[in-house]
Amino acid sequence: MLKSKSLMKLIKVASIACFLSTTNMAFAENAFYTLGTMGGPATIAERSQPSNLLIVDGQKILVDVGDGTAGQLAKIGQQADGLDMVFISHLHFDHTGGLFAILGLRTQTNARKPLQIYGPIGTKRLVAGLLSAMEPSLEAGYGNPNEPKITPESIAIVHEISADTPLKFDNFDVQIAENNHYSFAPGTPGFDNSKSLSFRFNLDDRSIVYSGDTGPSAAVEKLANGADLFIAEMMDVDATIIKIRKLAPNMPEKQLMFLEQHLKSHHLTPADLGTMAKNSNVKRLVVTHFSPGYTDEKLIAPYIATIKEQYNGPVEFAADTNKY
Amino acid sequence: MLKSKSLMKLIKVASIACFLSTTNMAFAENAFYTLGTMGGPATIAERSQPSNLLIVDGQKILVDVGDGTAGQLAKIGQQADGLDMVFISHLHFDHTGGLFAILGLRTQTNARKPLQIYGPIGTKRLVAGLLSAMEPSLEAGYGNPNEPKITPESIAIVHEISADTPLKFDNFDVQIAENNHYSFAPGTPGFDNSKSLSFRFNLDDRSIVYSGDTGPSAAVEKLANGADLFIAEMMDVDATIIKIRKLAPNMPEKQLMFLEQHLKSHHLTPADLGTMAKNSNVKRLVVTHFSPGYTDEKLIAPYIATIKEQYNGPVEFAADTNKY
Repeated sequence: MLKSKSLMKLIKVASIACFLSTTNMAFAENAFYTLGTMGGPATIAERSQPSNLLIVDGQKILVDVGDGTAGQLAKIGQQADGLDMVFISHLHFDHTGGLFAILGLRTQTNARKPLQIYGPIGTKRLVAGLLSAMEPSLEAGYGNPNEPKITPESIAIVHEISADTPLKFDNFDVQIAENNHYSFAPGTPGFDNSKSLSFRFNLDDRSIVYSGDTGPSAAVEKLANGADLFIAEMMDVDATIIKIRKLAPNMPEKQLMFLEQHLKSHHLTPADLGTMAKNSNVKRLVVTHFSPGYTDEKLIAPYIATIKEQYNGPVEFAADTNKY
Repeated sequence: MLKSKSLMKLIKVASIACFLSTTNMAFAENAFYTLGTMGGPATIAERSQPSNLLIVDGQKILVDVGDGTAGQLAKIGQQADGLDMVFISHLHFDHTGGLFAILGLRTQTNARKPLQIYGPIGTKRLVAGLLSAMEPSLEAGYGNPNEPKITPESIAIVHEISADTPLKFDNFDVQIAENNHYSFAPGTPGFDNSKSLSFRFNLDDRSIVYSGDTGPSAAVEKLANGADLFIAEMMDVDATIIKIRKLAPNMPEKQLMFLEQHLKSHHLTPADLGTMAKNSNVKRLVVTHFSPGYTDEKLIAPYIATIKEQYNGPVEFAADTNKY
């Protein structure tokens, strides 16, 4: 009897241990990696272009896909071949420049399933163009006669999404907000055809909001309300313009003027970001897509101080391949 | 009189110094950088995908353009915006995956001149697809109403080239060989539509031959004859297959078989490379596009030993951002 009781106790302890271990495993499996933390279009040596990897119960989901994403994946032990989905916040090339390589390299290792690509209106045309660009190489394959040909349909499936199309998957769901990265007037073609999105990924263990690129936005504040982790962009406009003048000295003044107007109204200053983090009451703020991309803590400290004037939760600046 | 003689001597010395300094400047300006030294399709943390930058008298010329090229450029103080030309050896995606980012980022800084792109048959379709993929984002621009729109024609101009079309520029010329990276039988569509090229860049101060990807090839040996610098690929087939099995575990066996067949017949083993360097009598051999991409000198030493069994000139393995 005593023996049986001890056995029962042992089984109970083992079950709890097993449950806890499984739970921990689930926690351990979910992660958000900031693969590239620089805002384009200028590139710098220390930070790669915008891209992130969300892992949810083993599913691997790129969130934006700037130049160098395939290489950045290798730095956290991942490969293009193993990806399941891509979420694209908007179609500026610093956020999409790495997608051609991801699609192409996957065909060279014959990825088993098409990549599921979610993005704003225009994403279907983006991917159709990339698939069409791939055709001459797919026809050649590895250069052996009689190789089976890979069809474009097997490479990628595109889902155009909007604030009206929340998504539900097996182990997470996604809420979407339309943000203020473009400022076309309603009724103009730009308004209908160009959207920039922010995403909220609700996992079993936590909620992660990714701002993408945006100016101050009530819709994003609402999306981020109470989130455990807010991954947000930040822009020092004056320092960025000085940097771009230096790195792209031939850029015409008129285009530079449009760029400056864009940076000022379609991105978040440190003060904007502090206000947004405070208003949305997020539990933790991680700054990425950070321009001009300083890595020196002394240069970053004033931005953190400005953010903290509004927001009193924890704030940090991401580095490439950081895990959250 | 003596004074005059001294003056003449001074002028002469100054002239020689000036000439030497100018000559040195010319030498200093020309450079070949190995930006990415890994052969795809697998990516690794230590070596970026294939790309190189040739600088000739200030003209900046990409030679292949794998994933991450824009980021690698920043590591040598260059930007996509400043590029003049691109040479593409062949259309496998490890050599072209970074082109979409290069073209896109250039539009975001409004590069002044179209990029001149030289590549084999199929390059026009490749670039046409990429330009078509860019359209939705070009229509949005920076999201300001009334921005001038960038037209596809102003972004890139493609020149399809072959062994029959040597090129002459102001300060250098280019000879081209068709190599053995594909093995389609003459008369089949693959033979006509899929070519892989090797390039010889003849500069004022030296000749640089870039093998691209190739199996043993008499045409490449002829192209490289007596070259000052031979930048060549190398493949350890067995080690590469083991690595790909590990990194892309889902790759179907049939596709892996075609890949292995391709690696064995369409790339250079260390012994092949030694023989080719010897037969072409090149003055210096630099190995790049090196698979499986070891960085440990102890693992590289046996390859160098095998190459040196045939070739008795200097041999080294490139690292990313090396300058030659």
